[in-house]
Amino acid sequence: MTLPDWVPVREDLRAFEPYGAPQLDVPVLLNVNENPYGPSKATADDLAESVREIASDLNRYPDREAWALRTDLAAYLGVADPAGVWAANGSNELMQQILQAFGGPGRTAVSFTPTYSMYPEYARNTHTRWVTGRRAEDFTFDLDEALRLIAAEQPDVVLLASPNNPTGESLTLESVRAVCEAAPGLVVLDEAYAEFRRASTPSALEVLAEYPRLVVTRTMSKAFAFAGGRVGYLAADPAIVDALRIVRLPYHLSAVTQAVARAALRHVEESLARVDELRATRDETAGWLRAQGLDVVDSDANFVLFGTFDDRHAVWQGLLDRGVLIRETGPQGWLRVSIGTPEETAAFRDALVEVLA
Amino acid sequence: MTLPDWVPVREDLRAFEPYGAPQLDVPVLLNVNENPYGPSKATADDLAESVREIASDLNRYPDREAWALRTDLAAYLGVADPAGVWAANGSNELMQQILQAFGGPGRTAVSFTPTYSMYPEYARNTHTRWVTGRRAEDFTFDLDEALRLIAAEQPDVVLLASPNNPTGESLTLESVRAVCEAAPGLVVLDEAYAEFRRASTPSALEVLAEYPRLVVTRTMSKAFAFAGGRVGYLAADPAIVDALRIVRLPYHLSAVTQAVARAALRHVEESLARVDELRATRDETAGWLRAQGLDVVDSDANFVLFGTFDDRHAVWQGLLDRGVLIRETGPQGWLRVSIGTPEETAAFRDALVEVLA
Repeated sequence: MTLPDWVPVREDLRAFEPYGAPQLDVPVLLNVNENPYGPSKATADDLAESVREIASDLNRYPDREAWALRTDLAAYLGVADPAGVWAANGSNELMQQILQAFGGPGRTAVSFTPTYSMYPEYARNTHTRWVTGRRAEDFTFDLDEALRLIAAEQPDVVLLASPNNPTGESLTLESVRAVCEAAPGLVVLDEAYAEFRRASTPSALEVLAEYPRLVVTRTMSKAFAFAGGRVGYLAADPAIVDALRIVRLPYHLSAVTQAVARAALRHVEESLARVDELRATRDETAGWLRAQGLDVVDSDANFVLFGTFDDRHAVWQGLLDRGVLIRETGPQGWLRVSIGTPEETAAFRDALVEVLA
Repeated sequence: MTLPDWVPVREDLRAFEPYGAPQLDVPVLLNVNENPYGPSKATADDLAESVREIASDLNRYPDREAWALRTDLAAYLGVADPAGVWAANGSNELMQQILQAFGGPGRTAVSFTPTYSMYPEYARNTHTRWVTGRRAEDFTFDLDEALRLIAAEQPDVVLLASPNNPTGESLTLESVRAVCEAAPGLVVLDEAYAEFRRASTPSALEVLAEYPRLVVTRTMSKAFAFAGGRVGYLAADPAIVDALRIVRLPYHLSAVTQAVARAALRHVEESLARVDELRATRDETAGWLRAQGLDVVDSDANFVLFGTFDDRHAVWQGLLDRGVLIRETGPQGWLRVSIGTPEETAAFRDALVEVLA
């Protein structure tokens, strides 16, 4: 896409493309870490009825504070005070609000690569200076490197994904604590994939009460199979939430979004049962990939990073030619596959065997 | 609201309150220019069924381009190419995207007061320099003043509400043309209330094809009685839309929002019939206020600005004490009342007679 010269867009944006993975019509979609299981019939009925119940009031603006939804999310997280929970249209809107309030011109955010490829766009859109350190060679979080960079940069925001995307592994609580103690500003733990973590892996929610500048973000896209509903949420000190309320656009969450998100939350047991299946399939997939002689990163998420390939694009294309779309992203030589149904995972395995033959 | 000192929010935000009119529980709500008529039973059913149809796919991310919705909106506007239509979560998200792409640090946006009180917040959130000129004494658009300020400031964005909020009157096409010819950057006409304009009043859509840097924004909140659905949209040259696609958050419009907005659009005839009733009630209300000896601004919107009062707050409070909530906003001494049902309007009249007695 090239914008004509007459378009008076900011010069620093002119070279960019709209962000997003290719949206291709392919039988097996394992590219954007979606949950392969759509809502059940019972959940679908509940979603529709929740809209019917509020429909006659849609001429009115929604509850600007989304209080009922935040109360439900707080209950799910085990957070006592809903004033310490906030929600937005996807965790990308949360991240934008966080950087509008705590980043911006003259301020610095720090992260560690390889990590989620949208982060630099949030920084760009909010004019936050974006500084990255490196993870270790095996993609684990390198605490020494992190503390060194935090000391040097004194960042206003430290943004860490745990489990990390696209690599899959989580931070230890010791690392979270050490970062919170060293960082002078906000520490944001992006736990989009938290429900998929292995049994031994903690969540930063466990130490939230100890660090008032710690923010833990979550999403309904993955575990709740609700990517189409676009609801991200976070837990933090209520004063941090108050700061976000200053920059949020009024009525940012529609009455429909609030209603359907609450309906989806009523089916949490069904959702988490599916998560357990997906965790098992993930571990099987990782084991199978290792049995093929490939390197695999231990994953706490609903995807697996595997490699390495001299020509990863050829492998990606070979899979696509066989009807399986995965993601060519992250460190050079590696590929990321989302965990699908057993049938989709089998199709991926069969295709990969053919491609590597 | 006062943020504790330890909250590392941007210092320039610390003094702000979250934006929004008071949300009070009052029998007659005439304060935020909502359409008083909720969707009909048939529309409500269609909204619910539209969610049921997509529910089983909500584990998937939505169409990032919202192509079907943009096609429907283009048809409604009479715009030939849906690539020249864009939609977002309310026109406030549109405005933020516009200022992210075309405003920002080092850039200037110009508007003319009194006008919509959210505009400075969009500028603040995007670090766009915000410069305002004045409307004429009677609140009409002062073209000479506008051309003077545009020549002096060479703004990157000119932002004009037509019909203007909170005053109610529209720009002439001659003024729109003159501004488009003088302005070096984007010219944004916020036509949130366009469907309520008087028969003789044009829309800037009529000259859209002549000025590639002209953007006309609309909303489904008012005429479509869909404030709870949060859908704003705009028409512009497709290259302007492409610039917005660079800064939009991916998947910003949920699959649910896209589906219910399309369902609401299928009931356009019902909505526009209600708009005709509201226009008649507005004109009656304006006439009645004048008959009480008050000053009233001619309105093309679903509200009327009336005054003037030495102590407008006392009048506002007197109405509230009688169960009628209107808005204390805009120029000193004036009050704004939204147009409700005939019953709500009668309650407003009765209460005002008492308060002024």
